[in-house]
Amino acid sequence: MVNQFRYEIPTAIEFGNGVINDLAKHVKNLNGTKVLIVGDPGVVQAGVVDKLTKPLEDNGIPYVTFSEIEPDPAIQSVEKGLQLADEEGCDLVVGVGGGSSLDTAKAIGLMLTNSGHIRDYVGINMVPNQAAPVIAVPTTAGTGSELTIWSVLSDKEVKVKVSVGSIYNMPTLALCDPELTTSLPPHITAATGMDALTHALESYVNKATQPISEGLSVQAMKMISKNLRLAVVQGENKEARYQMLLASLIAAMAFNTTRLGLSHALALPLGAHFKIPHGVVNAILLPEVMQFNIIGNVKKFAEIATIFGENTIGLTTREAAEKAVTAIRQLKKDVGIAQTLSDYGVREEHLDMIAEEAMLSGNVAVNPVKPTLEDLKNICRAAMYPVAKEVVTN
Amino acid sequence: MVNQFRYEIPTAIEFGNGVINDLAKHVKNLNGTKVLIVGDPGVVQAGVVDKLTKPLEDNGIPYVTFSEIEPDPAIQSVEKGLQLADEEGCDLVVGVGGGSSLDTAKAIGLMLTNSGHIRDYVGINMVPNQAAPVIAVPTTAGTGSELTIWSVLSDKEVKVKVSVGSIYNMPTLALCDPELTTSLPPHITAATGMDALTHALESYVNKATQPISEGLSVQAMKMISKNLRLAVVQGENKEARYQMLLASLIAAMAFNTTRLGLSHALALPLGAHFKIPHGVVNAILLPEVMQFNIIGNVKKFAEIATIFGENTIGLTTREAAEKAVTAIRQLKKDVGIAQTLSDYGVREEHLDMIAEEAMLSGNVAVNPVKPTLEDLKNICRAAMYPVAKEVVTN
Ligand SMILES: [Fe+2]
Ligand SMILES: [Fe+2]
Repeated sequence: MVNQFRYEIPTAIEFGNGVINDLAKHVKNLNGTKVLIVGDPGVVQAGVVDKLTKPLEDNGIPYVTFSEIEPDPAIQSVEKGLQLADEEGCDLVVGVGGGSSLDTAKAIGLMLTNSGHIRDYVGINMVPNQAAPVIAVPTTAGTGSELTIWSVLSDKEVKVKVSVGSIYNMPTLALCDPELTTSLPPHITAATGMDALTHALESYVNKATQPISEGLSVQAMKMISKNLRLAVVQGENKEARYQMLLASLIAAMAFNTTRLGLSHALALPLGAHFKIPHGVVNAILLPEVMQFNIIGNVKKFAEIATIFGENTIGLTTREAAEKAVTAIRQLKKDVGIAQTLSDYGVREEHLDMIAEEAMLSGNVAVNPVKPTLEDLKNICRAAMYPVAKEVVTN
Repeated sequence: MVNQFRYEIPTAIEFGNGVINDLAKHVKNLNGTKVLIVGDPGVVQAGVVDKLTKPLEDNGIPYVTFSEIEPDPAIQSVEKGLQLADEEGCDLVVGVGGGSSLDTAKAIGLMLTNSGHIRDYVGINMVPNQAAPVIAVPTTAGTGSELTIWSVLSDKEVKVKVSVGSIYNMPTLALCDPELTTSLPPHITAATGMDALTHALESYVNKATQPISEGLSVQAMKMISKNLRLAVVQGENKEARYQMLLASLIAAMAFNTTRLGLSHALALPLGAHFKIPHGVVNAILLPEVMQFNIIGNVKKFAEIATIFGENTIGLTTREAAEKAVTAIRQLKKDVGIAQTLSDYGVREEHLDMIAEEAMLSGNVAVNPVKPTLEDLKNICRAAMYPVAKEVVTN
């Protein structure tokens, strides 16, 4: 375990059904005079943005909406949104949507108070000034972007994903209303839920965690174990939606300062080159990464098996640890994620590039087992083809 | 469970052996130009204050020391410390010690930026302005004051304890160095550890908690279950000290926004009138309060039994819940807290006053079982005399 560590969550959390109705109050408390709303075309079309503009209009708070966000948010979106904010004199940003919208909104808030270009701040702790006030309104349960230091952005010019990580990139307020997530279709609920699980789990078994994050990871995994299937197959189940949005947030509180592991290291290049949705690629990779990592943290994998309801009575700790992989394979199957990397066009000839790019990730150093390039390629190979080891219940 | 809730921990945490050596860096980061060090005579005598002044001197940061803190910190101490800070032009407060020192330091920081008198801010959310920067350095594991909104202060004029609770009363930085706790004698280790346990447990079973706090409470209880006995009987055990200081902090992260329960409601008047150390009075009350509360949260008391290592196999949930009380009685005995309320002079004729004052506490409304005045008196009665039900191992 680490000896010295820093833990800091400056973001205030407002959580619960109906909390978005208080948006105007929060904007005023943060001294916002004109709001830039940042959301992708999907949330505009679904009427979610209207739910935010209503309280603003009722309270006479001016706003402009920026919705040119792509699924893989681009540095170019940050530039455009920033330009709009500058032209319109916006001094507070409300991000609404999945990770793409929130990551973009946070980066725009950051650039409102920092000179130069967002590219100057790629890496960790490179940002000198606190961002303008940002209110993050997540509509997926999910990325946890509402409570992390990270913005992951695509640089379309060089076809690579880059990460900006800074305490100043954390939203001022996470305004989390589970009712916004009830209309998410099953496949997005499943993918984003598996992403949240990957956050909680990769943080829990990695080498940089500490007891604050461990307690939060365990809590998030318990909640996901109980609620993800229900949120997928009963989209309107309010309790399951509430628990999943909160689990995603708690997982973010856990991993924010610990980083993650090999699933996320590999997810970045796989996502950038093959356009695999972030949650899907994590779901595909996670069981294979767990299998690889077991011997780096046998005791915790055995605990994970118990959290996910496996029967470990009479088993050795080592045997119980294997059951964690079984449990996650079953969960992935239950929530309908049957794809493999092959389905997205990943082939043997791509693996050198993927492994080399993954090896550059800050998530590699904290992974419980130190991987070689060949290890990373083997994990990808295992995630490319359906295999006989899928001994899960149909 | 609550639907809407707010959760906010603006305090940054620096944790680990040796973190106090970076004090000067943190003072500079917070733009402090002259430091008021607030610590009780005990920490001055133990040389702990010297460990803080050394890095300040080495970095040319001026400071003054205020050490007129009593075990039950008084409003009058806040007045004196504030006057000294004003005279000396201090713009940053470092509190070092147990809850008394930290509560006083926080209140002084608050009054540096708020007009009027500290009495004006008694209650919750009564403070208009952010405090001056406060760095809290706990030397007990313990009160969790380094991470809460609360300052509990005695008003010697009217012989009553009052609480100031405000988000602006949270320290800017909690600088937590477990090595500062290794010289604590066993009886203080035991009492403060039982206080931390009471925080985690009362928050966990109360009506205002939510999953973030629940996850943190469980984690704190697991750590206390494993480490409190060791910290008491092996004071020099670095791992146990590390875990206990962190458990105390995690418990504070849990209860900060949920309040507590009847142990803390009763601890305030009992502490004020009979000078019972805060941790001791909580340890004396906790098993009796648990017994009273079981039927308000049977499932969670059963979980607590498991966390504390009770064998609940084959038991009903209701039976398992009783084992939680057994476990805490055993722990209290193991760490050497054998006192009763009678030992401190509490008599039948005092109970009306105690119960009436306790009933005014904000901790009553969140308690899992709604008490009558007679219930509160019965809890005190059970904590006054040694009884046959102590079926714990000698
Ligand atoms: Fe992720
Ligand atoms: Fe306490």
